[in-house]
Amino acid sequence: MKEERALFIPDKIVTANKNNDILEGYGIEITGGIITGIIKITGEYLNNFSGMVHKFDNLVMTPGFVQTHIHLCQTLFRGLADDLLLLDWLQKRIFPYEHSHSKESLRASCRLGINELLLCGTTALLDMGTLNHQDVVFEELKNSKIRAYAGNCLIDRNELYPEFKMSAEDNMKYTYELAKTYHNYSDRIKFGFAPRFVLSCTEKLLRDVKAMSAEFSGSLMHTHSSENLGEIETVRRMTGKENIEYFDSIDFLDERTVLAHCIHLNEGEIGLLKKNNTRVSHCPSSNLKLGSGIANIPRYIKEGIQVSIGADGAPCNNNLSIFTEMRLAALIQKPVHGPDSMDARTVFRLATIEGAKALHLENEIGSIEIGKKADFVLLDLEKADQPLIQDNIYSSIVYSSARENVKHVFIEGEQVVENGRAAVYDEKEIRSNGKKELNKLIKRMQGN
Amino acid sequence: MKEERALFIPDKIVTANKNNDILEGYGIEITGGIITGIIKITGEYLNNFSGMVHKFDNLVMTPGFVQTHIHLCQTLFRGLADDLLLLDWLQKRIFPYEHSHSKESLRASCRLGINELLLCGTTALLDMGTLNHQDVVFEELKNSKIRAYAGNCLIDRNELYPEFKMSAEDNMKYTYELAKTYHNYSDRIKFGFAPRFVLSCTEKLLRDVKAMSAEFSGSLMHTHSSENLGEIETVRRMTGKENIEYFDSIDFLDERTVLAHCIHLNEGEIGLLKKNNTRVSHCPSSNLKLGSGIANIPRYIKEGIQVSIGADGAPCNNNLSIFTEMRLAALIQKPVHGPDSMDARTVFRLATIEGAKALHLENEIGSIEIGKKADFVLLDLEKADQPLIQDNIYSSIVYSSARENVKHVFIEGEQVVENGRAAVYDEKEIRSNGKKELNKLIKRMQGN
Repeated sequence: MKEERALFIPDKIVTANKNNDILEGYGIEITGGIITGIIKITGEYLNNFSGMVHKFDNLVMTPGFVQTHIHLCQTLFRGLADDLLLLDWLQKRIFPYEHSHSKESLRASCRLGINELLLCGTTALLDMGTLNHQDVVFEELKNSKIRAYAGNCLIDRNELYPEFKMSAEDNMKYTYELAKTYHNYSDRIKFGFAPRFVLSCTEKLLRDVKAMSAEFSGSLMHTHSSENLGEIETVRRMTGKENIEYFDSIDFLDERTVLAHCIHLNEGEIGLLKKNNTRVSHCPSSNLKLGSGIANIPRYIKEGIQVSIGADGAPCNNNLSIFTEMRLAALIQKPVHGPDSMDARTVFRLATIEGAKALHLENEIGSIEIGKKADFVLLDLEKADQPLIQDNIYSSIVYSSARENVKHVFIEGEQVVENGRAAVYDEKEIRSNGKKELNKLIKRMQGN
Repeated sequence: MKEERALFIPDKIVTANKNNDILEGYGIEITGGIITGIIKITGEYLNNFSGMVHKFDNLVMTPGFVQTHIHLCQTLFRGLADDLLLLDWLQKRIFPYEHSHSKESLRASCRLGINELLLCGTTALLDMGTLNHQDVVFEELKNSKIRAYAGNCLIDRNELYPEFKMSAEDNMKYTYELAKTYHNYSDRIKFGFAPRFVLSCTEKLLRDVKAMSAEFSGSLMHTHSSENLGEIETVRRMTGKENIEYFDSIDFLDERTVLAHCIHLNEGEIGLLKKNNTRVSHCPSSNLKLGSGIANIPRYIKEGIQVSIGADGAPCNNNLSIFTEMRLAALIQKPVHGPDSMDARTVFRLATIEGAKALHLENEIGSIEIGKKADFVLLDLEKADQPLIQDNIYSSIVYSSARENVKHVFIEGEQVVENGRAAVYDEKEIRSNGKKELNKLIKRMQGN
């Protein structure tokens, strides 16, 4: 089917192209998973078209959404680590949980996470894996058909939970083997090197993994920065520098580095992000839920810093829906920056074409344009209970929509969500298996 | 059916009673719309039970949710008034829109709003109506079977949009007639007197309507206060007082007054709310979206001020779901007050039993207890994609759930939502009619 020509005709196309065109009466022609035409539909054209025609009356087509900071390995821990500050959250819950993962519990966690992401219209992501069993994450990413950068997380020191680390040497060896195997594992899977954060990585590890990434053309660097005041205070104590200053001093920052959070930055650090063209992944729900703070995203955007959005992990959110994140990314800035800051269209772009840019995939995905991969979503915005008129379509998507509005999702022209149901997974099975694996994991933890 | 005995057996019952009991293996017995038993289910009991038995495997029962600040008349304007500050929002959009309502557009607006509220599990509300055609709101509330306090909104001065007001005398006459007709219109409908806010009401009107409310035993007062800094500055200029101080000085505040918002209060005003036992309706989405600010709810709760939750109107939210509001009510406080502030259980109570208290209906609704009305919701929390274990049920409801988790809704034992679909409305019809009425309303506005 992938090689065949097909025509998809929705009610409207919200392109996320440079002009923010919203097209009515158009269809997209797909050949071999690529958008090969954006066509004004006429009776004549339809009569002469030889491939399959898919009509989606009353549905709105958008690009597949892109999330640039996800922890699939944590999905199983949703609801089990609430109401804690970041460092407590890591020490008391997340590190012990991740440490107790078996291959099978990790697989269950990935499946639940990918399923939720697909059902909510996310078609590409940057994932931070865990310390062990990373093969499982890549297998599940590939089988799910989602587009992803991913990588094992590197930890060679851990004062919070000392059991959960690896020697720098072993960690680098393991990472190298994984990168060799899984970078370009499929045409949708690439490697994202993922040292956890400054507190869990020696300077040598950070420098070495950065150097290693240069050997893998097209790979990314992915870490956390400046999320929490306690974290920053410890970084300052350990390095004598602010977090971003420290990264800059060890040549860690460039345009292929994605930093999650970046909440508490001084002027100099904002300048360093700009100078290095380093990418910020904004995680609004997680930043509120862990009590971390609110990143000054309108300022970063004004400075020309590249910003995209991520739901982070299930236990600090507690959803993985891009719709939740878009809405919150808009709303939380308004009391400080005014109600006209972070308008719906701006936020929609952060979740589509800007996400693609963060991953250096802007020539392949992130908008509905000729030559791009046919990664797209069909939304039933009428379900948002509002009479849809032309000028409120971004508002409808960003402020009023949720998973229930996602009707169909396609990746390279292949359907992964059909009528709001996963075409990839047996949902009942992954849920009951998730429950079983979580119970076994909790028993393993209690046994330790 | 209402008078028959019936037994409802969910997987778990989250009671919201004083002990926050979560019951497993129990059912509730309903007779004539009242909970007449909470029963440990045994084979013997079932064998001897004579009425209908409804089993809800894997579903969680909660009390029907209560929202204490809603504008049904604005539902039609969702997405048409984004990215504006409160006073601009009123002047440029909301007042002109409300002013242009016909009976039929108001009816369409109410239906869309009530439908969304029911589908999201809200079974009781306090609504602020509009200046004209208020009969329509009461008719729709009654027909929908929802439980409500409602009232026309009173406006006798309007510098923002002078066409949209009524003389104090006419407004009082109109209000009196409405209250006579609709207070206790059915056993679910009561009157809530609703002067809009200080800027749109003369002191005489505020005093007179407060006095009038005393004639209608069991009625409420409902207004806005201290939402926006510009509003407060104008109140100060007009009255020489802060908003709450002014209300106190004209004897407007007591335990039957519900004030929406209360974002910017000084210490004296907090004391006045406490002294008068006045109720605060917290509207987190609206407060962010209009750039108004974040109310210090943890402080109010600590002071013993009675707090509940409302979604406000569709154009400032842009949803009416209690789940959106619960999640945000928890999240927005955490960066300031710490991640353990506003835990999920506390927020769940604000949206159930505390909502009932705000409406002085705590002896009738707000929890699953013997003697209360059988207003309840059945949630499919498995859809929240998390292996459900005992200690994360509040987290699952507050942080991870949405409309799609609402399976069934009952009011006094009558089903109003069945399998996630409205049992009250033809959804297709109310949507297409809403669209038609909105287009006509916009034409009326342009013709003016």
